[in-house]
Amino acid sequence: MSETKQCVAERRPRAIGLLGGGIIGGGWAARFILNGVEVRLYDPAPGALESVRNILANARRAFGQLTMVPLPPEGTLTVVGSIAEAVDGVELVQESAPERLELKQQLLSEASRAAAPETLICSSTSALLPSLLQIGMKHPERFLVAHPFNPVYLVPLAELCAGQHTAPEASARAAEIYRSVGMHPVLVRKEIDGFITSRVQEAAWREAMWLVHDDVATAQEVDDAVRYSFGLRRPIMGPLQTYRMAVNEANGRRAMVRMGPELKKPWTKLTEVPELTDTYLDKLGQQLDAQMEAENVTFSELERKRDDCLVAVLRGLRSEEHGAGSALARWERGLRERVPQPAKGSDPLRLPTLVIPSSWLDYNGHVTERCYQQLCSDATENVLNYIGIDAAYRASSGSYFSVETHLTHLRELRAGDRVQVITQVLHADDKRLHLFNRVMREGDDGPAATSEQMLIHVSANSGRSGPVQGQVRERVLKLARLHAQRPRPERAGASIRLP
Amino acid sequence: MSETKQCVAERRPRAIGLLGGGIIGGGWAARFILNGVEVRLYDPAPGALESVRNILANARRAFGQLTMVPLPPEGTLTVVGSIAEAVDGVELVQESAPERLELKQQLLSEASRAAAPETLICSSTSALLPSLLQIGMKHPERFLVAHPFNPVYLVPLAELCAGQHTAPEASARAAEIYRSVGMHPVLVRKEIDGFITSRVQEAAWREAMWLVHDDVATAQEVDDAVRYSFGLRRPIMGPLQTYRMAVNEANGRRAMVRMGPELKKPWTKLTEVPELTDTYLDKLGQQLDAQMEAENVTFSELERKRDDCLVAVLRGLRSEEHGAGSALARWERGLRERVPQPAKGSDPLRLPTLVIPSSWLDYNGHVTERCYQQLCSDATENVLNYIGIDAAYRASSGSYFSVETHLTHLRELRAGDRVQVITQVLHADDKRLHLFNRVMREGDDGPAATSEQMLIHVSANSGRSGPVQGQVRERVLKLARLHAQRPRPERAGASIRLP
Repeated sequence: MSETKQCVAERRPRAIGLLGGGIIGGGWAARFILNGVEVRLYDPAPGALESVRNILANARRAFGQLTMVPLPPEGTLTVVGSIAEAVDGVELVQESAPERLELKQQLLSEASRAAAPETLICSSTSALLPSLLQIGMKHPERFLVAHPFNPVYLVPLAELCAGQHTAPEASARAAEIYRSVGMHPVLVRKEIDGFITSRVQEAAWREAMWLVHDDVATAQEVDDAVRYSFGLRRPIMGPLQTYRMAVNEANGRRAMVRMGPELKKPWTKLTEVPELTDTYLDKLGQQLDAQMEAENVTFSELERKRDDCLVAVLRGLRSEEHGAGSALARWERGLRERVPQPAKGSDPLRLPTLVIPSSWLDYNGHVTERCYQQLCSDATENVLNYIGIDAAYRASSGSYFSVETHLTHLRELRAGDRVQVITQVLHADDKRLHLFNRVMREGDDGPAATSEQMLIHVSANSGRSGPVQGQVRERVLKLARLHAQRPRPERAGASIRLP
Repeated sequence: MSETKQCVAERRPRAIGLLGGGIIGGGWAARFILNGVEVRLYDPAPGALESVRNILANARRAFGQLTMVPLPPEGTLTVVGSIAEAVDGVELVQESAPERLELKQQLLSEASRAAAPETLICSSTSALLPSLLQIGMKHPERFLVAHPFNPVYLVPLAELCAGQHTAPEASARAAEIYRSVGMHPVLVRKEIDGFITSRVQEAAWREAMWLVHDDVATAQEVDDAVRYSFGLRRPIMGPLQTYRMAVNEANGRRAMVRMGPELKKPWTKLTEVPELTDTYLDKLGQQLDAQMEAENVTFSELERKRDDCLVAVLRGLRSEEHGAGSALARWERGLRERVPQPAKGSDPLRLPTLVIPSSWLDYNGHVTERCYQQLCSDATENVLNYIGIDAAYRASSGSYFSVETHLTHLRELRAGDRVQVITQVLHADDKRLHLFNRVMREGDDGPAATSEQMLIHVSANSGRSGPVQGQVRERVLKLARLHAQRPRPERAGASIRLP
C-alpha cells in the first residue's frame, strides 16, 4: 500500500525534449516544468506554444491545490525550430505526435539520428507496438513506449512497454525519470496492441456505446450509472480485486471459482462493434451535448472542474496513502528533501518563501482561514522537525500537541503575494513549548497574520503530558535560550478585544 | 452538476423489510438504520444477525467520517422468523437473496402474497430480468429491480429497472425512497440482462482476465494500471464523456466521428471468454493472494481501508459538489432539515448534541485540533443562519468573515462522549461580531474547549468591511442585547500565558 521512502530527488533530469505539443505533449511540458525540469519543445503546428501555455496555466492552478509543499523553481520552456534542437543535450526525448504509425516512425527515426546514443527516447502512444515504432531508429535499444493519461500533470500512471530491441536498462532508467516527477510507472510484460489500459478502457467504452445505440440509456445515464457506482471505487481497487471482494472470499482461487462462471453470462455484446451510421452519430452527438448543457459549463470550464475533482480525489487518497495517493505522498517527500534547511542559530526559524496561489482565495478574493491555519501548522511542524522529533522519537518518547491557538489576520493577502512564515520560540520548559508565528509578505514591515500557540509534550507510553526527552530536550531548551535574546513580538500575549 | 435543493426528509419510510442479510442485505440494513428507518430482517441462514451487526458497525464508523451533520436516532433492527413478518406493515420490501432465478421467484411470490397490495417490492439482483422475477407475483405492478453496490451504505447508485408488468408509479415511489436515504436512482430505459452497470463492468473485467491469462501483466499490475490512470477519473466522468474529452472536441458528434474508428482497432479479445482451467485458476488465485499479501492486510482490514478511501473520495467530491458528491450534499441538506431549530430568546444558541466518533481521534486517542475547529466553525455558521444570513443576503449585501480566533482545549474528550456547543454573542455593532463558543460535555460543569472569535462584516459590492444591512442588522443587534444580560464567560478576553 505504501511505497518505499527512498530519496527520489536526485534522479530528476535537468532537461528533456518534447516532440509534439498537443494535449498530451502540453501535459508533459507542464509536469516537467513544474518539477523544475528544462523543456525544449518542437511542434511545427501553428498555435502550439499558446496551447502549451494554456495547459501550463491550468497545471499551475491545479498544483497550487494539490500540495502545500513548496515547488522547485519552474524549469524554462524553450520552443525550438527543429527536431535536432529539441533532442540536443537532453536526457529524455518524449514523442507525442498524432497516433499514425508512419508519422511517428519518421519522427522517431530522425530524433534517434540527431540525439546522443545514450539519450532515452519514449513514445506517448496509447496503442501502437514499440517494435514497430523502433524500426528505422538508430540505437533502438534506448527506445520504449511511455503512455501517459490526460491530464498528464495530474494522473500519475506511466504505462511502459518495451519493444523487441529495447534494452532492459532503458526501461529502468525511464521508470526512474518518471518517478522523479511524481509518476507511477508500470511495465507491461508482453508487447500487445493497446497495452493494459487501452484494452480495459476500450472494452468498457464499447459496451457503453452499445447501450446508447440500443436506447437502454442516454449518454448521461450511462455515465452517471458508472460514476455513482463501481466507478467510485476504481481509484481504490482495480477490476480484478473488485470481483474478488464481490464474493466476500479471502482466498483468491476460491473467489474466482465462485465468480468466474459469471463471465459466461450473455451480458455483453461480445462479437460486434456498433456501426457509426449517421443516425447513430446524430443521436450520440446530441446526447453528449445535452450532457454538457445540463452541467451548464463550457469545455474549458469542464476541464477545470475535472482538474479540481481530480485534485480532491488525489488529496483524499493522499490522506489514506492509498493507490495514486501513495504516488503523491512519495512525490511530496521528494519535494521536501529539496527544500533548503532552516537557518541555524539565534535567528528565528523561517519557512521557505511561498507564492499565494489563487486556489487559496474565497469568492471575495480573501485568503481563507483554513489556509492561514495550514501555514501556521506547517511552521509548527518545521520547529518540531528542527528540534529532532521524528518517527523514532514519536514511537519511543512522544510528541507535542497544541492546547491553545490564537490566530489573527492583520492584512489582506492576494494571489501572487510572496510570503514567508517566521517562528520564534517564546518559552520552553520540560513540558511546554510556546511559539509565535508571523506570516510576512515580502516588502511589508509588519505581519499579514500571526499565530500564537501553546503546545504540551505528551509521552508515548502514557498518552498524557510528560517531560520531553534526551537530545530533543537539549535542542528545544537551547533554541528557547537563543530566541529569548530576540525582541518579543508586539502581539505576543494579546487577547481578543474591540479595537 | 448540482441537484435540486428540495426537501427530501419527509419521503423517508418509517419501516422496511429485508429478505436476505448477506453482504448486500446487511449493507441495505446499515443504510436504512443509520437513516433512522426501522428494519425487519428475514434470513434463515445461521450467523446472519452477527454478519449484519458487523456490517452495521463498519457503516457507523464510515458515517462518522463521512459527515459532521448530526444523524437521526438509529432505526431498530428486528430479526423475524418468516417472510410474512418481514413484510408486515412496511413500506418497502427489499429482496437480496443469492442470484438464482428460481429461488428469487419463490421468495418474491411468497412476499407478494403476504404483503399489503400497495407495499413496494424490489430485488437487488445485479443481472436478472425483472419480467422473469415478477412471474408468479401477486400485484406484480409494484415490483421492480433496485440494484445497489457494495458497500451499500456508502455507494450511492440505485440502478432501477422495471419489468413488463411494473407500474411507472412504482418506479417513481421507489426512486423517492432511495433518494431519501442519500442514494442516486437511475432508471434503465429498456429491460436488459445486466442492466447498465454489470454490462460495462463485466466488459472491463473480461479484458482484465485475458491480460492475466496471457501473462501480459499480473493481477496487481492490471489493477494498478487501471486505478492509477483512467480509474482515477471514473468517479468524475463516465466512459462516454472520457472519450469525448480525449479528443479535446467540444462538439459531441465531431468528437465521436474522430474517436469512433478507434473502436474497430483489434485491441480487445472480442469474441471469447478465457477458459477457467485449473492452471489458469491456480495462477490467478496466487496473484490475487500476492496482491493482498503485498498490502499486508487481512480481508476485513481491506474492507475498512476500502471504506476509508471511499469516504475520502466522497468527501473530496462533496467539496466540489460533483458526481456522487452532489448526492452526499443533497443527503446532508435533508439531514439538516430534520435537526431541531436552536432555542429562541435570551438563552445562548445551542447546536444539537453530537456523539464524538472514534474517527475524530488521533493515534494517541485525543480529539484532533481540526475537529475542535470544525465544531466551533459549525457553531459560528449556526449564528449566521440564525440572524438570517442566507444565499440571497450574501449575494446582495455580504457576510461575516473571521479576523481573529482563539481556541483553547481544557479537557480531553473521548469517543462516545456527548457534546453540545453553546454560543454567546459578546458584542455586535454595525461591522463587528464578537462570539464565544463553549464545547460542553454532558455532565461536566465546565467546557472541554472554548473558542473566542471576532468577525467583521464584509460588503458584497466592495469586498471590504462595511455595515451589516436591514433585517440581519436588527436581528444581530437584538441578539447581542439579549445575550448581554447573561454572565460573561470566564475565559472571554483571555490571552495565552504560562499557567
